[in-house]
Amino acid sequence: MKRTCYIAELRPAQAGQTVTLQGWVNRVRDFPEQYFVILRDRSGIVQLTIESDNPVYGVASELRGEYVIEVTGTVRERGEAQRTDAYATGGIEVIPTDLKILNAATTPAFQVDGTPITAAEDIRLKFRYLDLRRPEMQRNLMLRSKAVASVTRFLDTEGFIQVETPMLTKSTPEGARDFLVPSRLNPGEFYALPQSPQLFKQLLMISGFDRYYQLARCFRDEDLRADRQPDFTQLDMELSFVEQEDVLELQERLLASVFRDVLDIELPLPFPRLSYFEAMDHYGSDKPDLRFDSAFVDVTDLFAGGAFQAFASAGSVKVIAAPEMTRKQIDELERIAKQNGAKGLAWLKRDGDGFTGGISKFVGDQAAELLSRTGVAAGGTLLFAAGEWQKAVTALGAVRLALRDLFGLAAGGQFHVSWVTDFPQLEYDEDNARWTYMHHPFTAPHPDDIHLFGTERQGEIRAQAYDLVLNGFEIGGGSIRIHDPAVQEKMFAAIGFTPAEAHAQFGFFLDALAAGTPPHGGIAWGFDRLLMVMAGAQSIREVIAFPKNNRGADLMALAPAAVDAAQLMEVGVQVAARVDVE
Amino acid sequence: MKRTCYIAELRPAQAGQTVTLQGWVNRVRDFPEQYFVILRDRSGIVQLTIESDNPVYGVASELRGEYVIEVTGTVRERGEAQRTDAYATGGIEVIPTDLKILNAATTPAFQVDGTPITAAEDIRLKFRYLDLRRPEMQRNLMLRSKAVASVTRFLDTEGFIQVETPMLTKSTPEGARDFLVPSRLNPGEFYALPQSPQLFKQLLMISGFDRYYQLARCFRDEDLRADRQPDFTQLDMELSFVEQEDVLELQERLLASVFRDVLDIELPLPFPRLSYFEAMDHYGSDKPDLRFDSAFVDVTDLFAGGAFQAFASAGSVKVIAAPEMTRKQIDELERIAKQNGAKGLAWLKRDGDGFTGGISKFVGDQAAELLSRTGVAAGGTLLFAAGEWQKAVTALGAVRLALRDLFGLAAGGQFHVSWVTDFPQLEYDEDNARWTYMHHPFTAPHPDDIHLFGTERQGEIRAQAYDLVLNGFEIGGGSIRIHDPAVQEKMFAAIGFTPAEAHAQFGFFLDALAAGTPPHGGIAWGFDRLLMVMAGAQSIREVIAFPKNNRGADLMALAPAAVDAAQLMEVGVQVAARVDVE
Repeated sequence: MKRTCYIAELRPAQAGQTVTLQGWVNRVRDFPEQYFVILRDRSGIVQLTIESDNPVYGVASELRGEYVIEVTGTVRERGEAQRTDAYATGGIEVIPTDLKILNAATTPAFQVDGTPITAAEDIRLKFRYLDLRRPEMQRNLMLRSKAVASVTRFLDTEGFIQVETPMLTKSTPEGARDFLVPSRLNPGEFYALPQSPQLFKQLLMISGFDRYYQLARCFRDEDLRADRQPDFTQLDMELSFVEQEDVLELQERLLASVFRDVLDIELPLPFPRLSYFEAMDHYGSDKPDLRFDSAFVDVTDLFAGGAFQAFASAGSVKVIAAPEMTRKQIDELERIAKQNGAKGLAWLKRDGDGFTGGISKFVGDQAAELLSRTGVAAGGTLLFAAGEWQKAVTALGAVRLALRDLFGLAAGGQFHVSWVTDFPQLEYDEDNARWTYMHHPFTAPHPDDIHLFGTERQGEIRAQAYDLVLNGFEIGGGSIRIHDPAVQEKMFAAIGFTPAEAHAQFGFFLDALAAGTPPHGGIAWGFDRLLMVMAGAQSIREVIAFPKNNRGADLMALAPAAVDAAQLMEVGVQVAARVDVE
Repeated sequence: MKRTCYIAELRPAQAGQTVTLQGWVNRVRDFPEQYFVILRDRSGIVQLTIESDNPVYGVASELRGEYVIEVTGTVRERGEAQRTDAYATGGIEVIPTDLKILNAATTPAFQVDGTPITAAEDIRLKFRYLDLRRPEMQRNLMLRSKAVASVTRFLDTEGFIQVETPMLTKSTPEGARDFLVPSRLNPGEFYALPQSPQLFKQLLMISGFDRYYQLARCFRDEDLRADRQPDFTQLDMELSFVEQEDVLELQERLLASVFRDVLDIELPLPFPRLSYFEAMDHYGSDKPDLRFDSAFVDVTDLFAGGAFQAFASAGSVKVIAAPEMTRKQIDELERIAKQNGAKGLAWLKRDGDGFTGGISKFVGDQAAELLSRTGVAAGGTLLFAAGEWQKAVTALGAVRLALRDLFGLAAGGQFHVSWVTDFPQLEYDEDNARWTYMHHPFTAPHPDDIHLFGTERQGEIRAQAYDLVLNGFEIGGGSIRIHDPAVQEKMFAAIGFTPAEAHAQFGFFLDALAAGTPPHGGIAWGFDRLLMVMAGAQSIREVIAFPKNNRGADLMALAPAAVDAAQLMEVGVQVAARVDVE
């Protein structure tokens, strides 16, 4: 049972040759005395032309959409008038000499022949085996597979060792909720599914493997959003005897290699770098979309102590220049600003060398300086956020993205990668009135800032942490790790862990850290999200073969499901009595 | 922070050059006015020689085993007298000009410097991060990583698409016990961790991906034995539009490629093939170790109706020829035969052209024929098992393996691969007095045997199933799958499933099967076991970075563990009251 080639490999130069193809009936067009059958395999489609004097005409009359067939026939160039550019083999057709139905098919729940999908996502997920036949899904999963092969090839060449870490393990310090697995052999005890291989990859460095990677399945039991899945895939890497610069340089070459192999796109190297402060201060995001600029301009000084109360004493006044906008559009942006913590969204419209509308009555002497700093175009809009710095920039960051969507500031098919570095080591948890780690407790602080631990300036300590940002998505994050037990102790003290508490939570890992740990660091890529952006898809579900919906359900396999009491008893648990809290 | 090379890359030709190395202090030998420091990285070891006039002599005096250091120094060829072949760089030494302690280390729980390990396995597992520093474990995990890269490269070139299948799913029909995961978002419901991606990979064929593979993590909650783990890794593959021959041919090239890339060994192709019947009849095993022959000889006819009661009416009398043995050795083999279902182990010792001992008084006329059929050497032993065929060959199969171990019939470092094919489609389950599937219910029967379904000869139906056998281990198993709904119906009927029962258990999959399924088949390799055999290890734990012990426990991370009631309540379960059955 042999095809001579995939459909996409057919060439006009093969005219007159005999080929054997296998695939699905994409569509049948039934003309008087003639069938046009579009045959589909994973590579593409081609037309079979069957006249009524063809011995296979009778078989052709039985064909329905999604039947599985094998056809042997002669390649023929189409006449000028019949040619189409709608698909790659549009210049040829195949005249069958033999046609076999390998399997019949029920009528599909929705069209999978390349016509735009209109079925609701729930229906697509219920019949995922059909949905995956659609050209978009075929392309997405092939793109993903290519990316995996590219990564493997690159890291293998660079001396990385692929190691599988445990799937049945103990809670890791990522801080999200764990999925639990009852242990039958140890009644009353539970495994946790790994949130990430963080501790294990550090242990591999302690073991001397020097360079590790893994496409790791990870699990977080969170309330699901559009771009979350309960299980997801991380490209996980760790390197010994490195500094931050080494990790970043290698990651740049890796990502460039993946883009080259998968999309035939050359990413310019090196990637631009922004500190966390710059990213927030200029773009209001720690993962700024830099396909367009629209950076904020600081005008705190212009309004300080002035007539406009809301700006006069604000810690920060930031402005972003936008095109001409309707009042309705501005109102919508103000709604977004408020949703993101702003009290309001002040605005101005440029009119000649001055401003009208919004807060224009408070702008007198500052007009010239505002024009000069923002360079807003004639008729254009200035949008302001003011208040405490973090709140002001965050709200204006959301406005910036809304402007992108409103005015199409970032074209599809365009990719911009950057690094965000120098994240804070610690952040103050207002709810619990204590300091906590921003990344995780094993992230190394910047060596110049270690003296700030335990002082009132410890909020200023920079972490040796870095995020990889693509088109406004954080597609990777990592850090240099602490390898010096004395620094580790300072870190635990800073977040209020006594040595006893630290040991209770991280015992074996701290023992390992003392057993001869090399300097090391690494990164993990959110592989699903990277592929989503590369594929130009709107959700990671579009690049996962069998995803869950936003209730964590597999609508096709019908998981999760009730299990019988005996099976539960065997693993030592029972369903808890439901406590309804109204 | 840059090494100039890994240690194993050092060459005598570099004499006089300056190098920078990083790694662990493998050992320090302290002579008067001189330190010999053996430095280790993942590639190997090298000697640093530090005389008392060396400025780094003071730092050298602080070094202890497993300290992490960075050294810059000059490569020097060793004198004839100092050279050693004990390790690859034994012809050179490095004279440090700079020596930095990057990290100290506590005293390790056991030696990891290459001296043979004497620590109990539990201790090794508790301090796995140390155990993994040992050269054997470094080599095993690197070998595994190479195998992964080799597989990826080969299958990528052959047009396979790598797809990740769900980790949180529903029970599959493998029939082992599932690990369950409570769903917080769907209280009272559970996911199952996948026992294999069987149904999903078939769905991918139904979706038209044509060729799929995945290194899939799988889970079975079984009572653990030496070569089992609760989570394990399967190299999972599936192909569309193929017949058994296509799968076997590709697998042979794949395995040969892996052996070539990883061990530099050429496996002779094609692999020999035995039917299930031949394997059992000649070697008493469906995964015969064919590194040695010692095939059984059938002598049923010689004893039929004769004086020796136990043989006279036996369905089968099989004999294996063995070297000369002591009575004690024969007794031990008889114990093994009995453990494996035989009533006893009859024996004869060749003495000239006749036999003595054992059942020799029953051997008269048959002696010449026995000699001729078995070719037993002078002084050699014949060992007999008799009874119902399956029982006789199974018991003698165990004896055959015991002979291998006793007489070293299979040398280490030798590899023999074979196929076992034509497994029975159905087997009779005596306990439940019904027919059941031998492989799984979607395995395709041999087309010539389909007419036997539903007849009293359905036990003779051959499955299009095949196992890949390496040195007596089943390292892979697969089959052509049923793609014709009518055959699927016959199969369900044969194992006593009504259409309603079949639908209740496999609903969505049967719908998918009717939606246009191509002929397809595949295989899954037990990747851990393959690597174990390739590495010459005795347990799969030797080729897994962080394995569980035989109670399913991770002795390092201390998993599984009790979790607090609030965490359980959140996922909707509670620990069941323990019912002790004495």
